[in-house]
Amino acid sequence: MDIATLLGMLGALGVIVVAILIGGSASGFIDTPSLLIVVGGGLLANLVKFPLDQTMGAFKVASRAFVHKSTSSEALITECMEMAGVARKEGLLGLESLEISNEFLNKGVQMAIDGHDPEFVRKVLNKEINLAIERHEMGEAVFKGFGESAPAMGMIGTLVGLVQMMSNMSDPKAIGPAMAVALLTTLYGAVLANVVALPMAEKLAFRTSEERRNRHLILEAVDGIQEGINPRVLESLLTTYLPENKRELDKKVEEA
Amino acid sequence: MDIATLLGMLGALGVIVVAILIGGSASGFIDTPSLLIVVGGGLLANLVKFPLDQTMGAFKVASRAFVHKSTSSEALITECMEMAGVARKEGLLGLESLEISNEFLNKGVQMAIDGHDPEFVRKVLNKEINLAIERHEMGEAVFKGFGESAPAMGMIGTLVGLVQMMSNMSDPKAIGPAMAVALLTTLYGAVLANVVALPMAEKLAFRTSEERRNRHLILEAVDGIQEGINPRVLESLLTTYLPENKRELDKKVEEA
Amino acid sequence: MDIATLLGMLGALGVIVVAILIGGSASGFIDTPSLLIVVGGGLLANLVKFPLDQTMGAFKVASRAFVHKSTSSEALITECMEMAGVARKEGLLGLESLEISNEFLNKGVQMAIDGHDPEFVRKVLNKEINLAIERHEMGEAVFKGFGESAPAMGMIGTLVGLVQMMSNMSDPKAIGPAMAVALLTTLYGAVLANVVALPMAEKLAFRTSEERRNRHLILEAVDGIQEGINPRVLESLLTTYLPENKRELDKKVEEA
Amino acid sequence: MDIATLLGMLGALGVIVVAILIGGSASGFIDTPSLLIVVGGGLLANLVKFPLDQTMGAFKVASRAFVHKSTSSEALITECMEMAGVARKEGLLGLESLEISNEFLNKGVQMAIDGHDPEFVRKVLNKEINLAIERHEMGEAVFKGFGESAPAMGMIGTLVGLVQMMSNMSDPKAIGPAMAVALLTTLYGAVLANVVALPMAEKLAFRTSEERRNRHLILEAVDGIQEGINPRVLESLLTTYLPENKRELDKKVEEA
Amino acid sequence: MDIATLLGMLGALGVIVVAILIGGSASGFIDTPSLLIVVGGGLLANLVKFPLDQTMGAFKVASRAFVHKSTSSEALITECMEMAGVARKEGLLGLESLEISNEFLNKGVQMAIDGHDPEFVRKVLNKEINLAIERHEMGEAVFKGFGESAPAMGMIGTLVGLVQMMSNMSDPKAIGPAMAVALLTTLYGAVLANVVALPMAEKLAFRTSEERRNRHLILEAVDGIQEGINPRVLESLLTTYLPENKRELDKKVEEA
Repeated sequence: MDIATLLGMLGALGVIVVAILIGGSASGFIDTPSLLIVVGGGLLANLVKFPLDQTMGAFKVASRAFVHKSTSSEALITECMEMAGVARKEGLLGLESLEISNEFLNKGVQMAIDGHDPEFVRKVLNKEINLAIERHEMGEAVFKGFGESAPAMGMIGTLVGLVQMMSNMSDPKAIGPAMAVALLTTLYGAVLANVVALPMAEKLAFRTSEERRNRHLILEAVDGIQEGINPRVLESLLTTYLPENKRELDKKVEEA
Repeated sequence: MDIATLLGMLGALGVIVVAILIGGSASGFIDTPSLLIVVGGGLLANLVKFPLDQTMGAFKVASRAFVHKSTSSEALITECMEMAGVARKEGLLGLESLEISNEFLNKGVQMAIDGHDPEFVRKVLNKEINLAIERHEMGEAVFKGFGESAPAMGMIGTLVGLVQMMSNMSDPKAIGPAMAVALLTTLYGAVLANVVALPMAEKLAFRTSEERRNRHLILEAVDGIQEGINPRVLESLLTTYLPENKRELDKKVEEA
Repeated sequence: MDIATLLGMLGALGVIVVAILIGGSASGFIDTPSLLIVVGGGLLANLVKFPLDQTMGAFKVASRAFVHKSTSSEALITECMEMAGVARKEGLLGLESLEISNEFLNKGVQMAIDGHDPEFVRKVLNKEINLAIERHEMGEAVFKGFGESAPAMGMIGTLVGLVQMMSNMSDPKAIGPAMAVALLTTLYGAVLANVVALPMAEKLAFRTSEERRNRHLILEAVDGIQEGINPRVLESLLTTYLPENKRELDKKVEEA
Repeated sequence: MDIATLLGMLGALGVIVVAILIGGSASGFIDTPSLLIVVGGGLLANLVKFPLDQTMGAFKVASRAFVHKSTSSEALITECMEMAGVARKEGLLGLESLEISNEFLNKGVQMAIDGHDPEFVRKVLNKEINLAIERHEMGEAVFKGFGESAPAMGMIGTLVGLVQMMSNMSDPKAIGPAMAVALLTTLYGAVLANVVALPMAEKLAFRTSEERRNRHLILEAVDGIQEGINPRVLESLLTTYLPENKRELDKKVEEA
Repeated sequence: MDIATLLGMLGALGVIVVAILIGGSASGFIDTPSLLIVVGGGLLANLVKFPLDQTMGAFKVASRAFVHKSTSSEALITECMEMAGVARKEGLLGLESLEISNEFLNKGVQMAIDGHDPEFVRKVLNKEINLAIERHEMGEAVFKGFGESAPAMGMIGTLVGLVQMMSNMSDPKAIGPAMAVALLTTLYGAVLANVVALPMAEKLAFRTSEERRNRHLILEAVDGIQEGINPRVLESLLTTYLPENKRELDKKVEEA
């Protein structure tokens, strides 16, 4: 559960609402047609960019930004080291009885057990990593696309409002409020883009790079296990995936 | 048929029209000279960027964004697996009698039947993929170019209007309407760029990446068939091109 | 002759002039000091970016955007196929009597006739392609640089005008015309950048990529001829450089 | 200790404060709600982009921009040359008694002493470099993210203020001060982004590239020592990491 | 001596001064606090980005943009061809008596004379090229950094001025001049960035790419000489570094 996403988004929106309320009533900040232009128009313009199923898929991917349970690299390394020990003693077939938590690791080990060539396993896992990343990047792209469409529609809405206001300036008192309404679409677009859509795209990109790192770790581990390299050697290879301060902890555990 | 493109484009334009009508009559939003500057000027400036035949070709390419029937990767994999089975039993020549739906797959298989070297087939297909992508990217570039020319001409039109208005401000009542007309070119440019041209370029880029993925799948399949690798091994290679949840379905079909 | 460049540039400028004339006289749009700032200042600022000889060279390169006669890939393929036929029958020395239209092709063939190693020929031609592209990109860079300097000088001119206007606002009637003049430099900068300089840079980039593709085709052809590969095989390699629909025509000619 | 970071940041902020004081009192420039929107809102929006622990980690990384003690390449080369001498005379095991200042160098030498394969040592050190850079880049990304969120929140705050001001323009005298307050969030955002966050990200990127260069130097040195190449040859390899003028000094020392 | 840099910079500044003088006195355009904010603040903010010694070093590098004496590729080729001739007749040791103008060429030849392995020489020279380019790019980065800091400080200065002006609008006559002063920082920032800093960065980048090309030429030449390849073959390799029209001249000289 990535609490930061929800906390950050609600918090930033809350800060904006507070800023509005300090200045008076919030009623002047709600305008249905403006909302329609920015949210509706933005989503529709985004549909021109991406097919319907990709757009739908992005919402499912979005959940990864909120309720993601990232696999810790430490846990992965520990699991892989155990497997390397088993494989050394009982051969690759000894791995068959183990229960493997990570799906990608499981696929790699299964291929090793099935007797596939190490080079082939590497090739399939590598391809799998690259294609999975391509699919994840699509989710980011949809959010980034909306993060560009929403402010664009906001600007269009403000231009429409300005043109209307300027065509009819007989009542000077009406100019201010009319301009206030015209600016609302720009405000909506800026909030949607900078608090919701673009940060979401960035968080998804972060998750993707995390996943990629973990999957490369697994690829390395499966390769090592299959080649039967010394568990100690494998460990010094895998711990490079941890920041320096976390490796120390690992060492202590190991020495204990 | 990619309904999202048409739906999104008409929908977003509709939302803008509704926003205009809510605020009053739409008549103030139509100005022929402004339209001439943005659409005509934008298209002409784009001609400086791209040769005439490329610009014409882009319109044909654009149809791909509306009526594209994408080849499903699942169908391609199924077809390739069948061919791998045939090739295993009857040799490569056994493929001659098969009817192949996909043109690129057909070319690859034909080259294999003709007895070309696997490495040569890979080289030709790879070159074909890269050059086809280069051609597709030209279509995207034309739309992206217009998506930059249109708002630039819009800004130029607004500047022209502002200069005219400011040179002659004897009648204060005329200032508002004159400025409204001046802003129209910016509005037109923003709509054309953000609802039509740039999203179109993005959709075409999406189609290109989809096509590239499918063609790499085919390249992999032809290579496998020609090398005579085990269909089961080939399958585990090709299914990496599918998202995880779709592979399960595949498995069920296979087990049935 | 690339008619699109001239047509597009004059057309877009014409559209802007028409827009000005519709709104009244064009005399208010001509201001010599403003022109001096944007054109003179822009060219001078560009000299800081690029040496004098590169700037001069760019004007010569610019002609390629207007009067370019692109070598058609079809013609090149036909010529190469003929040469492959001759080389097959009479050996590489048989090529000596042929007249070769394309300079780059000529250099490659000459090197092959001179008995250079195929790998060496590939290396020299490859280096030649990369270095020629680097030189062409310099021409694009000069235009792109001016396309950034001109609007920057335009903005500087407008700021100068605004500061002058605001320091002395005793006569309210003078404010409008003064601001009109101040805006002219922004207008000039926008027109020069978006109708002339940046589109020119883009067209030159297009020509460069076209040239690069043709030269790679030639490299491939010379390599094939020198290695003595089957003309039919060579053809299937070279036709990948053509879009699918043009290959069909080729086939018909061939079958005839 | 990188004095430039602190000096630059405090100096630039001081210059801004002086500019404010010259124009009158600074009291009009402090507005708590505006500060809340830009700093609070900016930090919260940044939490949507990066997980909590990455954000916290970035503050620790930030200290590297202030109190960084960079390892000088000259010192590293001298140390490596000594080690190469020892290894030549006493073998790799002779290195065991040396005290090694740099952690990364220590790891490499330890692996060499432990008898690991040179290729394996290279692979582990290379992986270590790449993964360490990836971790450092995360710190830069957090600062860059805030450098984009802060001005975005500033713009949102200004829009909120403008809408409030325009909805209620009954008192013309209040317009100026209301707009002044509205502009404050834009000012805060611009200062935070351009004086603090973005320059910090740039300094961290500079430190990362410095570190990367030093680590490649070490990788090269360890490799050379393990392969037992001539110290003089190793030196001519390592001194390429120094700018030309610093090499001369080195030579003098050497000749002395 | 690159006259274009000085000519362009003074010329563009002169054009701006002329534009100011045409509009009246220049005295309204000089404001010490504004200058302090943009120049002082910009330099200080840049110190946060780059360490003190890099910033100082950039000024020394900057001289390369003014008084650079570029090594002509033609001269380099002629020198290398002579050396190739000598090496052919008298062996590599025959090169010892030659005086070599270019430092990098000298280093390469010295290494060849010292009997280093061709592959090792290539490796050292290649590393030298890459690391020298990295150092040069630092100089560009410092100028680019200032080219971003200066307009940012200009915008901050204008915002400060606007807030001050708006907080106190009791005297309508003071509004104009106050706004004029506020705009000055934006003007200063725009001039410094677009006439001085960014163009300087671009010129330095141009010099770097020129240097890189020459060094690759030298690398190629040293490699060829050491491998003892035919001078005529070497020449056809090296002349690819010249534009087509310059090669002809070379040919004439050679034939003479």
